[in-house]
Amino acid sequence: MSDHVYKKVEITGSSSVDMEDAIKNAVNKCSSTIKNMDWFEVMDTRGHIKDGKVAHWQVTLKIGFRLD
Amino acid sequence: MSDHVYKKVEITGSSSVDMEDAIKNAVNKCSSTIKNMDWFEVMDTRGHIKDGKVAHWQVTLKIGFRLD
Amino acid sequence: MSDHVYKKVEITGSSSVDMEDAIKNAVNKCSSTIKNMDWFEVMDTRGHIKDGKVAHWQVTLKIGFRLD
Amino acid sequence: MSDHVYKKVEITGSSSVDMEDAIKNAVNKCSSTIKNMDWFEVMDTRGHIKDGKVAHWQVTLKIGFRLD
Amino acid sequence: MSDHVYKKVEITGSSSVDMEDAIKNAVNKCSSTIKNMDWFEVMDTRGHIKDGKVAHWQVTLKIGFRLD
Amino acid sequence: MSDHVYKKVEITGSSSVDMEDAIKNAVNKCSSTIKNMDWFEVMDTRGHIKDGKVAHWQVTLKIGFRLD
Amino acid sequence: MSDHVYKKVEITGSSSVDMEDAIKNAVNKCSSTIKNMDWFEVMDTRGHIKDGKVAHWQVTLKIGFRLD
Amino acid sequence: MSDHVYKKVEITGSSSVDMEDAIKNAVNKCSSTIKNMDWFEVMDTRGHIKDGKVAHWQVTLKIGFRLD
Amino acid sequence: MSDHVYKKVEITGSSSVDMEDAIKNAVNKCSSTIKNMDWFEVMDTRGHIKDGKVAHWQVTLKIGFRLD
Amino acid sequence: MSDHVYKKVEITGSSSVDMEDAIKNAVNKCSSTIKNMDWFEVMDTRGHIKDGKVAHWQVTLKIGFRLD
Amino acid sequence: MSDHVYKKVEITGSSSVDMEDAIKNAVNKCSSTIKNMDWFEVMDTRGHIKDGKVAHWQVTLKIGFRLD
Amino acid sequence: MSDHVYKKVEITGSSSVDMEDAIKNAVNKCSSTIKNMDWFEVMDTRGHIKDGKVAHWQVTLKIGFRLD
Repeated sequence: MSDHVYKKVEITGSSSVDMEDAIKNAVNKCSSTIKNMDWFEVMDTRGHIKDGKVAHWQVTLKIGFRLD
Repeated sequence: MSDHVYKKVEITGSSSVDMEDAIKNAVNKCSSTIKNMDWFEVMDTRGHIKDGKVAHWQVTLKIGFRLD
Repeated sequence: MSDHVYKKVEITGSSSVDMEDAIKNAVNKCSSTIKNMDWFEVMDTRGHIKDGKVAHWQVTLKIGFRLD
Repeated sequence: MSDHVYKKVEITGSSSVDMEDAIKNAVNKCSSTIKNMDWFEVMDTRGHIKDGKVAHWQVTLKIGFRLD
Repeated sequence: MSDHVYKKVEITGSSSVDMEDAIKNAVNKCSSTIKNMDWFEVMDTRGHIKDGKVAHWQVTLKIGFRLD
Repeated sequence: MSDHVYKKVEITGSSSVDMEDAIKNAVNKCSSTIKNMDWFEVMDTRGHIKDGKVAHWQVTLKIGFRLD
Repeated sequence: MSDHVYKKVEITGSSSVDMEDAIKNAVNKCSSTIKNMDWFEVMDTRGHIKDGKVAHWQVTLKIGFRLD
Repeated sequence: MSDHVYKKVEITGSSSVDMEDAIKNAVNKCSSTIKNMDWFEVMDTRGHIKDGKVAHWQVTLKIGFRLD
Repeated sequence: MSDHVYKKVEITGSSSVDMEDAIKNAVNKCSSTIKNMDWFEVMDTRGHIKDGKVAHWQVTLKIGFRLD
Repeated sequence: MSDHVYKKVEITGSSSVDMEDAIKNAVNKCSSTIKNMDWFEVMDTRGHIKDGKVAHWQVTLKIGFRLD
Repeated sequence: MSDHVYKKVEITGSSSVDMEDAIKNAVNKCSSTIKNMDWFEVMDTRGHIKDGKVAHWQVTLKIGFRLD
Repeated sequence: MSDHVYKKVEITGSSSVDMEDAIKNAVNKCSSTIKNMDWFEVMDTRGHIKDGKVAHWQVTLKIGFRLD
């Protein structure tokens, strides 16, 4: 039970709303193909500027999940 | 007046709401025991995923406060 | 067309609202003097604590813009 | 022969024994699905504490393997 | 359209020619299995020395691609 | 239940045996004064050399514990 | 003579040719507005991938120049 | 004798004189409450500018001390 | 009043005297063209050696100033 | 007595046994040519994988020794 | 056979041609005094600018070689 | 003339006076065995505390020198 092994994948989510939403979009996208997602770590936060305003929030995260 | 000395402590706050709330929870918790808190620095942002959704935001910060 | 050159400047925005608002304030301030802003990268997130509560969010970002 | 291409994956192994065993568990787990594993790099070492004692060693590594 | 999600994979390419060629080899190898590759980031540059001369250039990069 | 707050302290343990023992010594020492220790993170590994041999292993770790 | 003061600016150059050409494009662009450029430091190397091939090399550098 | 355990605390000292004085102020402040201080490590050097001149030097250090 | 925006510029000062003097030279040089300078952060300390002796101290700092 | 000067050299030791043994091999090798070795710092831990198992532990360390 | 020990030295090569040539110059220079050179790692890339053009490429690398 | 090759060595100097003196002691010590020293880079600043006061300043630097 105790000697689990985990894999981490690096994902960039984007959103026009805010940083939390960019993270949720990334996690949501992965949930369709990855089982047993357990945690995420924010690596990097960026964004796109258009016409002098923030147009998109882009957050890169590592998502850790348990290998069966 | 000018030669103040400060101490920093490293605290992880969590919240099911968002990243700002995790930080506020950390600061609020410390306010009961630490006087003269002056600033914080975000060190690390992570989160817990449950059933394919973000369940908790976890933000580690350093909190600086003036030593009397 | 393809060999554009970009400059990055380092800006700290602050806000009493939240982290996204601190970033928007920084971008908005620069929009009056910088043309062709294209992206930003978050470098550092800090804040000011007053009376045991978060009083200001301070986000340092690099803003990239195309040189004509 | 000389222009090989490699991929790295990021894996966290855990063990109640020691750090080397956590690494071996990670490598062993991957050996069932990844061919041609060639090297690993330790990224991060953590552990779980229970009842005032180290209960698990958790080592995150990158594993490099040759793409056919 | 705007809320794309991207994945990054970490690849090491090698070449006896130069650093750019090692990168091209890595990208070329991935092009057969990854659709929608969008950008790369150089992480690390190394090389193999044989008989007192550079024999191979080895460049590790992260390749970002859009998830459908 | 979910909005716990944690504190991290930075501790250096030493041992003449091995790295795991240096970590255990650090955790054991703290267990007499810190309740609810939950995890540790290895920050730095050093050692003392005497008469051309490793005399002590010194491991600096951060220990995280829940604040009541 | 000895107590010179220098300023550094951060510039991203791009090129479809190679990394050196991206750097030369950045330096060349700045030469029209900055006098007394003295050195550069490479910060980051990226690139754009199109149709499975490297389309552009993007190198971010800091350029140091003497203030009169 | 050999298996000592040490704790590190993070302190910011300030001074209008110079960097060494800021460090001495930090160490001196701690000497009233911490026994067995053994070493310090400089983490960060900053300063306050007022009327176009350096008004204060601020040095953040970690101070290591032996736990009894 | 509270939502100020700051810019940081990166400057290298040099001095044949000591590190503090190199920093003062950098700040003094900027004071003729930058208003509202508020703080500096030391990024890097180097020096020039001539005839086996330290000939110049070179300190690179970021200077933060408030945008009007 | 107090103004000693030290040099650090960077050494990679390897072992088929464990990480501590790789470090001991590195220190032992240097002991034949370096006098007054005083401490080591672990920089990097890697390993070689063969037939799906860890074949060698490779630890890079800096070894500090006093110059006469 | 398996428990080799390696040393790394840090070398800066320069060239007026390109980055690869700066690396080759560094390796070539060392080949006259170092036997058994095995690999290099690029640490840092800089250059000298003269009359608004790149005059020299300067690449700092670590070169690893086997100790007999 | 232009394609010089340099080597860097890592040295720790100490002094009971101040940080500049620790650096000068390191450079002075090396001047008896190294020709053509050209620059230094500060890597790390530490110190020894005795009886609640700073007893020694310890500065680790890399010293670069031209290979003939």
